[in-house]
Amino acid sequence: MLSRLAVALVHYPVLNRRNEVVASAVTNLDLHDIARSCRTFGVGRFFVVTPVKEQQKVVEQILEHWLHGYGSTHNPDRCSAFQLLETVADLETARERWSKKHSRPARIIITSAKSPQGLNGQDCQQLLAEEPLLLVLGTGSGLAPEIIDRSFETFQSIQGVADYNHLPVRAAAAIILDRIFTGR
Amino acid sequence: MLSRLAVALVHYPVLNRRNEVVASAVTNLDLHDIARSCRTFGVGRFFVVTPVKEQQKVVEQILEHWLHGYGSTHNPDRCSAFQLLETVADLETARERWSKKHSRPARIIITSAKSPQGLNGQDCQQLLAEEPLLLVLGTGSGLAPEIIDRSFETFQSIQGVADYNHLPVRAAAAIILDRIFTGR
Repeated sequence: MLSRLAVALVHYPVLNRRNEVVASAVTNLDLHDIARSCRTFGVGRFFVVTPVKEQQKVVEQILEHWLHGYGSTHNPDRCSAFQLLETVADLETARERWSKKHSRPARIIITSAKSPQGLNGQDCQQLLAEEPLLLVLGTGSGLAPEIIDRSFETFQSIQGVADYNHLPVRAAAAIILDRIFTGR
Repeated sequence: MLSRLAVALVHYPVLNRRNEVVASAVTNLDLHDIARSCRTFGVGRFFVVTPVKEQQKVVEQILEHWLHGYGSTHNPDRCSAFQLLETVADLETARERWSKKHSRPARIIITSAKSPQGLNGQDCQQLLAEEPLLLVLGTGSGLAPEIIDRSFETFQSIQGVADYNHLPVRAAAAIILDRIFTGR
């Protein structure tokens, strides 16, 4: 059970393909896929992080459909996944809420396509036995230096063959949660 | 390297939510995400299986954009992922082509959300040392009995908590490829 684990999907500050810091747009399918992966492995919360009010409204509309609208009865499995989702303006708010929920400070673990030496799934499982964790995923071309440079611990990057590191964030989330769940 | 492994994403025959056998529509993002996961782990080929001519055309148009059109120069990483993709009318054609490519019969491994006792990633890695494999994923609510009942070997289903087994096929593909690549 990963109930002490929360996932934060960050839309600001992230990099775009030209290495500029931007606020990315919320992608509907990111919410669906990552919520379903979180639900599968028993993750406790899925924070969608964006400071952009219009984007927060988009997320709230999607949630309304799946939690209370037609989607809730048409597809109850999706409803139970979306119950994990919560919108927050920034990463600090996500950490505060997750810490408050567990009455102790949540440890932030960031993810990156360039950190082969980071924590693995077993490390995270051991940490979870002691404290709440917040696993941070970046959209766009990844988390901006403003987050990366804050000396948080990092989950070891998913290494494939050669130097192709362009996994969708949805796929990376699924793989990392599987690794934590199975302790590998 | 998983160069002897091919992935087949089946759109017919699959089940819909009412357990009826249908041809599902091709989902653009399935192609993107699974092609990128295949490319990450060095998978040799990604077969998109649909007998529906109009759907085959949709796939060809997407490929044209990413292999030869604007997408090929705008996003070369995506181009290199889509180079793995090939459209076929049925599973047997995929198997024939993959067998021919390796001059020996390709073994079919199907996937299911209901097969906890199947092969794991290490088993598949060992098989790949000897022979080409074709890993078969179903869209919709999964592969139809017409495929499931043919006594192919099965990859062990991804078990999360309790009985929630509604991972997106994109997430399941990513997790299974990671497990085979890392031999777990």
